[in-house]
Amino acid sequence: MADPLRKVTIVGLGLIGGSLARALRAEGFADSLVGYDRSAEILQLGADLDVIHAFETELDRAVNGAELVVISAPTRVAAELLERVLVLVPEDTVVTDVASVKANLVEAAGGAPNFVPGHPIAGSERSGVDASRGDLFHDHRVILTPTEATGASALALVRRMWETAGAEVVELGVAEHDAILAATSHLPHMLAYALVDALSHSELSDDIFRFAAGGFRDFTRIASSDPVMWRDIALANRGELLNAIDHFSEHLAALRAAIDNADADALETRFAEARSVRENLIKKLVI
Amino acid sequence: MADPLRKVTIVGLGLIGGSLARALRAEGFADSLVGYDRSAEILQLGADLDVIHAFETELDRAVNGAELVVISAPTRVAAELLERVLVLVPEDTVVTDVASVKANLVEAAGGAPNFVPGHPIAGSERSGVDASRGDLFHDHRVILTPTEATGASALALVRRMWETAGAEVVELGVAEHDAILAATSHLPHMLAYALVDALSHSELSDDIFRFAAGGFRDFTRIASSDPVMWRDIALANRGELLNAIDHFSEHLAALRAAIDNADADALETRFAEARSVRENLIKKLVI
Repeated sequence: MADPLRKVTIVGLGLIGGSLARALRAEGFADSLVGYDRSAEILQLGADLDVIHAFETELDRAVNGAELVVISAPTRVAAELLERVLVLVPEDTVVTDVASVKANLVEAAGGAPNFVPGHPIAGSERSGVDASRGDLFHDHRVILTPTEATGASALALVRRMWETAGAEVVELGVAEHDAILAATSHLPHMLAYALVDALSHSELSDDIFRFAAGGFRDFTRIASSDPVMWRDIALANRGELLNAIDHFSEHLAALRAAIDNADADALETRFAEARSVRENLIKKLVI
Repeated sequence: MADPLRKVTIVGLGLIGGSLARALRAEGFADSLVGYDRSAEILQLGADLDVIHAFETELDRAVNGAELVVISAPTRVAAELLERVLVLVPEDTVVTDVASVKANLVEAAGGAPNFVPGHPIAGSERSGVDASRGDLFHDHRVILTPTEATGASALALVRRMWETAGAEVVELGVAEHDAILAATSHLPHMLAYALVDALSHSELSDDIFRFAAGGFRDFTRIASSDPVMWRDIALANRGELLNAIDHFSEHLAALRAAIDNADADALETRFAEARSVRENLIKKLVI
């Protein structure tokens, strides 16, 4: 096992940052895990809960002397913090992030060789450091999207960090990552928002909501996600998301045509294929 | 409490029919609960599990002498069984059903005053008589859609049956029911099918399915529903479903335009409204 790092700084102490800190602390990955957050209250809570060893309320002090800085904040805030951190740290301090879109982070990094874009595919319906769990990443995938600028040792360190936290690390291109996430995560969120929006602006909306059943609850769960975070994801991944919406709309139009034409065979075939595809997928999913 | 009925026949012994039989049996609603199903094996299982008192493998014998017949089968099969049952029974035998679309059942009944269209808003991921539970309808809503032809005493008996099973009974017009269910249930199923269909026909489909996360699992759960049942629902509720798809598509197009225009305020407002609407709804939902 490698020697522990002296200092790792977690910038943003929410569910993801807190869970990562807990996992790294349990494995002795660093002598000191230091937290930074806009809220001193959250930092104090993180210390009280033994999530972090120490905290700083100023970003420059927080990252000073760190070998590794993990920016654990949502899309837009992550890009802003990344720009600030890269100015503050020397080139041998490795910096990584956990945000859902990668192209805007890569752009914000401006070719810095010590930046490794990352995205853990894990989450919870709960949020905040008090919901953090050391096993959140166990058997979950973490996608790293190194660019040509990314240094090999920086990449290796971030990979080791996630493996220490129990995750399976895979590498993808930036554009491929953003296209895949647009299809599997960002598009479903847009559909759930659009569905709730459509139903609430229907003539029947009062009755619709009286009689909505369990399937509706599952289907629209993601429409209860944070509006600001999703605004920023939609904007940061705009191009890929528009492609995903258009691709979906074509398939919905084809299904609509089969219904309109009362084409029983086409409907049954489409539904059976979708069921089969989904069931094969669920068997493979590690969540 | 009213005297028990002599004989109630459950035509179709699946999750819904079996659960209703269990609930009615527990409350002493009828001296004899008789099952009928295409499958003698299922009927024997229902008897072995004490779901029903007795069974018949011929429909005419099953409904003979019954005061109440409950057709508990999916949309298209329900319409076929309803036509057969209405020929077999006298006008003082009340007949009801549990299917998801009501207009085609009302049409199949041809104005019979002893038919009461019904739809319990309850279900389970499991199916079959072995998954039946006596409390499946407790605190769930059952929608009855009587027409001008429906007799008052028939309606009262079906209402009493569902209340005995622990459900809250509400009445709606046939068209209103079908429009509401198109929006809250049939449309979400079509969206889930279309999403899985779109993703599986994407250039990135292998990777898409490697990295699909938990939200995707929830969102597409209903795409694992029975293809034949949903083919028949889509066809039986074609007009309302097409309206619901078009209404949704307009709202998706508006959201797409906000993304395309990078209209941050519009996106945040839409997402925040959808979250607020959904959370108010979930508080009211009884599921």
